[in-house]
Amino acid sequence: MDLVESGRKKIEWVKQHMKVLNTLKEMYMDEQPFKGINVAMSIHLEAKTAYTAVVLHELGANVAITSSNPLSTQDDVAEALKTYGVNVYAKRSTDEELYWKNIDKVLEIKPNIVIDDGADLGIRIVEKFPELLENIWGINEETTTGIKRYKALLNDGKLPVPVIDINDSYMKYLFDNRYGTGQSTWDGIIRSTNLTVAGKNVVVAGYGWCGKGVAMRAKGLGARVIVTEVDPIKAIEAVMDGFSVMPMDEAAKIGDFFVTVTGDIDVITEKHFMMMKDGVVLANAGHFDIEVKVADLERINTEKKEVRPGVTQYTMPNGNKLYLLGMGRLVNLVNGDGHPVEIMDLSFSLQLEGAKYIKEHKGEIEVSVRPVPYEVDLNIAKIKLKTMGIDIDELTPEQIEYLNSWK
Amino acid sequence: MDLVESGRKKIEWVKQHMKVLNTLKEMYMDEQPFKGINVAMSIHLEAKTAYTAVVLHELGANVAITSSNPLSTQDDVAEALKTYGVNVYAKRSTDEELYWKNIDKVLEIKPNIVIDDGADLGIRIVEKFPELLENIWGINEETTTGIKRYKALLNDGKLPVPVIDINDSYMKYLFDNRYGTGQSTWDGIIRSTNLTVAGKNVVVAGYGWCGKGVAMRAKGLGARVIVTEVDPIKAIEAVMDGFSVMPMDEAAKIGDFFVTVTGDIDVITEKHFMMMKDGVVLANAGHFDIEVKVADLERINTEKKEVRPGVTQYTMPNGNKLYLLGMGRLVNLVNGDGHPVEIMDLSFSLQLEGAKYIKEHKGEIEVSVRPVPYEVDLNIAKIKLKTMGIDIDELTPEQIEYLNSWK
Amino acid sequence: MDLVESGRKKIEWVKQHMKVLNTLKEMYMDEQPFKGINVAMSIHLEAKTAYTAVVLHELGANVAITSSNPLSTQDDVAEALKTYGVNVYAKRSTDEELYWKNIDKVLEIKPNIVIDDGADLGIRIVEKFPELLENIWGINEETTTGIKRYKALLNDGKLPVPVIDINDSYMKYLFDNRYGTGQSTWDGIIRSTNLTVAGKNVVVAGYGWCGKGVAMRAKGLGARVIVTEVDPIKAIEAVMDGFSVMPMDEAAKIGDFFVTVTGDIDVITEKHFMMMKDGVVLANAGHFDIEVKVADLERINTEKKEVRPGVTQYTMPNGNKLYLLGMGRLVNLVNGDGHPVEIMDLSFSLQLEGAKYIKEHKGEIEVSVRPVPYEVDLNIAKIKLKTMGIDIDELTPEQIEYLNSWK
Amino acid sequence: MDLVESGRKKIEWVKQHMKVLNTLKEMYMDEQPFKGINVAMSIHLEAKTAYTAVVLHELGANVAITSSNPLSTQDDVAEALKTYGVNVYAKRSTDEELYWKNIDKVLEIKPNIVIDDGADLGIRIVEKFPELLENIWGINEETTTGIKRYKALLNDGKLPVPVIDINDSYMKYLFDNRYGTGQSTWDGIIRSTNLTVAGKNVVVAGYGWCGKGVAMRAKGLGARVIVTEVDPIKAIEAVMDGFSVMPMDEAAKIGDFFVTVTGDIDVITEKHFMMMKDGVVLANAGHFDIEVKVADLERINTEKKEVRPGVTQYTMPNGNKLYLLGMGRLVNLVNGDGHPVEIMDLSFSLQLEGAKYIKEHKGEIEVSVRPVPYEVDLNIAKIKLKTMGIDIDELTPEQIEYLNSWK
Repeated sequence: MDLVESGRKKIEWVKQHMKVLNTLKEMYMDEQPFKGINVAMSIHLEAKTAYTAVVLHELGANVAITSSNPLSTQDDVAEALKTYGVNVYAKRSTDEELYWKNIDKVLEIKPNIVIDDGADLGIRIVEKFPELLENIWGINEETTTGIKRYKALLNDGKLPVPVIDINDSYMKYLFDNRYGTGQSTWDGIIRSTNLTVAGKNVVVAGYGWCGKGVAMRAKGLGARVIVTEVDPIKAIEAVMDGFSVMPMDEAAKIGDFFVTVTGDIDVITEKHFMMMKDGVVLANAGHFDIEVKVADLERINTEKKEVRPGVTQYTMPNGNKLYLLGMGRLVNLVNGDGHPVEIMDLSFSLQLEGAKYIKEHKGEIEVSVRPVPYEVDLNIAKIKLKTMGIDIDELTPEQIEYLNSWK
Repeated sequence: MDLVESGRKKIEWVKQHMKVLNTLKEMYMDEQPFKGINVAMSIHLEAKTAYTAVVLHELGANVAITSSNPLSTQDDVAEALKTYGVNVYAKRSTDEELYWKNIDKVLEIKPNIVIDDGADLGIRIVEKFPELLENIWGINEETTTGIKRYKALLNDGKLPVPVIDINDSYMKYLFDNRYGTGQSTWDGIIRSTNLTVAGKNVVVAGYGWCGKGVAMRAKGLGARVIVTEVDPIKAIEAVMDGFSVMPMDEAAKIGDFFVTVTGDIDVITEKHFMMMKDGVVLANAGHFDIEVKVADLERINTEKKEVRPGVTQYTMPNGNKLYLLGMGRLVNLVNGDGHPVEIMDLSFSLQLEGAKYIKEHKGEIEVSVRPVPYEVDLNIAKIKLKTMGIDIDELTPEQIEYLNSWK
Repeated sequence: MDLVESGRKKIEWVKQHMKVLNTLKEMYMDEQPFKGINVAMSIHLEAKTAYTAVVLHELGANVAITSSNPLSTQDDVAEALKTYGVNVYAKRSTDEELYWKNIDKVLEIKPNIVIDDGADLGIRIVEKFPELLENIWGINEETTTGIKRYKALLNDGKLPVPVIDINDSYMKYLFDNRYGTGQSTWDGIIRSTNLTVAGKNVVVAGYGWCGKGVAMRAKGLGARVIVTEVDPIKAIEAVMDGFSVMPMDEAAKIGDFFVTVTGDIDVITEKHFMMMKDGVVLANAGHFDIEVKVADLERINTEKKEVRPGVTQYTMPNGNKLYLLGMGRLVNLVNGDGHPVEIMDLSFSLQLEGAKYIKEHKGEIEVSVRPVPYEVDLNIAKIKLKTMGIDIDELTPEQIEYLNSWK
Repeated sequence: MDLVESGRKKIEWVKQHMKVLNTLKEMYMDEQPFKGINVAMSIHLEAKTAYTAVVLHELGANVAITSSNPLSTQDDVAEALKTYGVNVYAKRSTDEELYWKNIDKVLEIKPNIVIDDGADLGIRIVEKFPELLENIWGINEETTTGIKRYKALLNDGKLPVPVIDINDSYMKYLFDNRYGTGQSTWDGIIRSTNLTVAGKNVVVAGYGWCGKGVAMRAKGLGARVIVTEVDPIKAIEAVMDGFSVMPMDEAAKIGDFFVTVTGDIDVITEKHFMMMKDGVVLANAGHFDIEVKVADLERINTEKKEVRPGVTQYTMPNGNKLYLLGMGRLVNLVNGDGHPVEIMDLSFSLQLEGAKYIKEHKGEIEVSVRPVPYEVDLNIAKIKLKTMGIDIDELTPEQIEYLNSWK
């Protein structure tokens, strides 16, 4: 019961600060747009996602939810969420079998709409439960990683239903990926280690929108930032933003903190671990635990122990100690509370709008991967400005005419 | 002769620092890809553009050049450029008639390729010299403003030839618009006024890539930055970047420096001038002198005088003095040397590649407005990294496979 | 027993990262400079202070320790510390009586050296146990607040023994107050609230070294920072650093987060609470819980409840909800782990050196309040550079001669 | 006559923006505190210093002025200043003899008060004109370098009259040295070179208040900053501020821009020049042209020429080209307009107050080197806040009592 109490407090807290989502909820409350619609969700199960599920439920949906990452479930939130009328199948655990069992449980709801985070849910359907596809009108996908996978599926000619690419909506990637990942990654690292960031060499692998956020905040905390990239254009952007750019083979020797945000495998591997200084901290902020190659750490270490909650010390053959945070999984979710509330308010408002769009256009949407329509994005932005009490200018008719003129 | 000497020094200086363009020149020197081709250029005539014209000439082109803004010509550079074998028709002057006369002179070369900056040259052809169109294979356009105009032309069904949208190439807008405009705008303001930026309220109108650069550098100089916008998404981005956002009607009352970078008319007008504090500085970094409404200043002032070179003092009816820089034209070019060299090296390398692309695909390119192919962009980036001596990582086959997989 | 295990892990963790203190320990180990000397400590009892007590003990001292703030004790660390041979009298509690009882317990050791943090221990001796003074050679004081009090005592002619002013040593205030308070205050706020800092109005009351750190990091996290001050010079410094400066009466209306770091009473009081927006967060990073006037909140609220651990929600008569962190006590210690390890390594190395200085000069030091000698400061700096692997330049004889010459 | 017109414009411009000095002038106008008093000034002769001389003259003084650096005189301002009734002996020139001749001319006024910048004037008196000392009541010194020299004189027992150390007044060093040097140094570098700062390695030699300003602005312009230091404490401060710290022997190999602000000789010498990359820029922001060892450049170059105004290209024996700005003299004054106006308003208001203090306490001031009394500093700060329209909080009696209490 303490779990429920603790989880409810967390949900009520985020409810107070998710003002855009609350505005949408009020707008749609009478209409009940999701009445009788089944929604399956796979998403990091903490207070903000829980409240999103609650809102969908309040707007009429039958919701079943599990976590999109074995360690990102907060058990108190999961227990509390059940008391709001949502079907919850999630437990913090490293048990892979349990993870997939819960995914399958969620699918028993026979979803009309799938809300996905990393594509595990949608791809499970394609691979194991194709019979469910006939009821499915569309999928919302939240992350860079999930979009990459759905696009690969599309390229293979195997995408069965339209995917709304929440991740590439402006109100998502400009904010969640950058300011959300930036703040929460450092929250996770700092609270786990109590180490000083100022004056340290921070290596950020990947300078996409998430990497930009992580680098920007590292700089804001007083670090010298080193960026590694594979894309020449992003690499030059990092240089011009005042960061050092070099290959990981060089960065590995001088970094104090390493943060991976590439969406790819094997970014930091054995050869790098063997070059690192004693006492470095390794953290991953990408979707899967594949960027820092944990398998290599597990294989080559001479000693392994947990030295603080969420901090695993691996002793290397050369005697150096490396500290892996959150077992190489998303450090902001496993060692923290995930992205800050107001940022996720934007992303989950897009999720709500995306789901509503799927419902209202069922059967009409091309089977492809694409963002919510620009008007939806714009509307979220307008509501957000309103909740912040900020007015902006409006174009006059003369200004609009000028913009459309070539004279 | 002193003019020529001074101009040659400037051109030789930038030549030493435009390493990407020099790399391309060396690559193409034997091939002489522009041999016998006529190129008409309208562009701010200072050392970097002059050297670009020289390179085109050295690669075989017959080049005729004028300035894209009456006041952005540096007369010494114009005189010197003639000694390099380029046909130059440009003089720093506020004489509108002379401006258009020079444009027409340039067109006498009967261009195959047009290099444009603001679209005055291309639109002049459409309106006055349609007979030239049959020889024209395509147009390169450099600026946000020019692209806007060419797109309006396309929307009106009147675009006659393909336009290569240099402005929307990554290696242009990510760098030139942001780091170029950012540094050079403040260079122009500071050297004109000798005033302190730290601790001041700087109002930046427009938070596109140029506005982002101007705001970022204002913050870097210690200012408090206020952004005005008409786009809700950009407005929220400005908020999250730590800036204040408000309508110009409020910003006008508290700003110390105003910089317009919107590409639109009437951003700061009479009603704002009447609200402003005594002693504020007005600068424009957008293409045309229409953003700060100079006509209103001219009409309502009770006294007007030049108090420093490039600084016009307008006394308002309420007795307050406002200082307009560079007559409301591009402050970085009129009151300074324009964008820094290495930044323009990127933009003009794209121009060279764009021109080469037009030549190599004449007749094949759709009549539309679009960036250089991504490979061209990427190639410029790779050369730039090389000139900076920076290595980056490369994807392994396993990493590439993972990125293309949905499993 | 779990408490001991958890506490020992924390102490071992900081031991690995307090490299300057470890260097000093090794230097002095054979000498055992504190052999037979009694040391009484009052200090926030967490892992870093605990390890400092361990080091003193290992260098020969008999150490008795309590906490300098009722809520800053970490109970696991306190329990673990006992197993290292230190006398510990501390428990996390709001029981004032217990707090003073523990202080008195510590004094039973009949100290030769007092290590104080906020001056509660030293002033307790002056007021209640003057008979202890004959054995006391000197006091180390750590904080701005404690130094203020000891100086007031000196001004009243009541200071009985010399006070080494650790707080005004360069290696303390330049680092601990600024980078330590800056990082740890935001750690405490962010992990307690999971709210976004970017785009928010952060009001920092006080622009001393601590306030500078809090403001700098708020800016680094993307906030707009408002500073309130009573000192005109510091106020102008804040303006020039790009912050807004205004009286609290104005700031109260627009702030989203408030952080007090003044060392004075009544910085935010009823009249301000009544002006504040709904949902603001109140945090104190100053020594005592007097800056945010909690008594006013307690008196005027219509409802009070804990909504997250360490977050008390007070509903105001106007219906607005205010969130007080850590009961108005030091937010970084009560809602977090205090300053980061490597920063405190510097401060506690100064404490060790200060204690050693007191011992070596007993009876010779003037009864006054003053920093450690500059050479001690310099030596800590040199060791720190060495632990970071950083070399710096050395003056040549010619350069030294030039610096000392007026020719 | 054109010179006079140009110089008058500059003086009138700064007059409008030196609001603190104007406030003091108005306060003292009736009193005419300097009536009949002779003031000798040696100071960089540009518009702000000129206006300070004008104000002293308007308050009754007979003023004779020369420049404190052969190349920092702006000839138009010097000519114009004569028309305001000030005795001017200054000309931009590298002629050393002329420089000292002008100093001697100024001394013919038989000063009661000396206003010095770098100590050349005061030390000239001591060495050559000791007979003037009997009339001299005191000296104001503006710079770190000058104070160093006067303190050396004091240590040698040769200081004959009291020196008011303007440089160590809070309202001077916190602002002029930091925000003034920071902005104006980069103004001088950027306008001379038109090179990009973003993405470059900037080496700042010296992390005193001036160096902090130069480094802070380099970072604000997008550079990666490397600091060299000889002081371990300042070195660690630079590290914690996010900069790289290393010896000049290493920094020389990787820097793109070098700025010296140490006040010492031989900071960058032959061995460094020989290690540098092709195309680096060398600038000095310290008082004398001794930091970048120009003599070495002159000796070892294989070719020397001016490639832009104020930019000398030295070709090294290894073929690399180095660009020295302003002949190694103060880059902000020789290649620009010096510190921004509002910053110097503070410094020169202190000069005025310092001169007034000398006059009012003639014969009473100890022969030593010390700042203006704190009350004077505070008063300047209060006036500055007023001119900016900023209110701050005031301590309540309860707050004052608390601060003075040890209870």
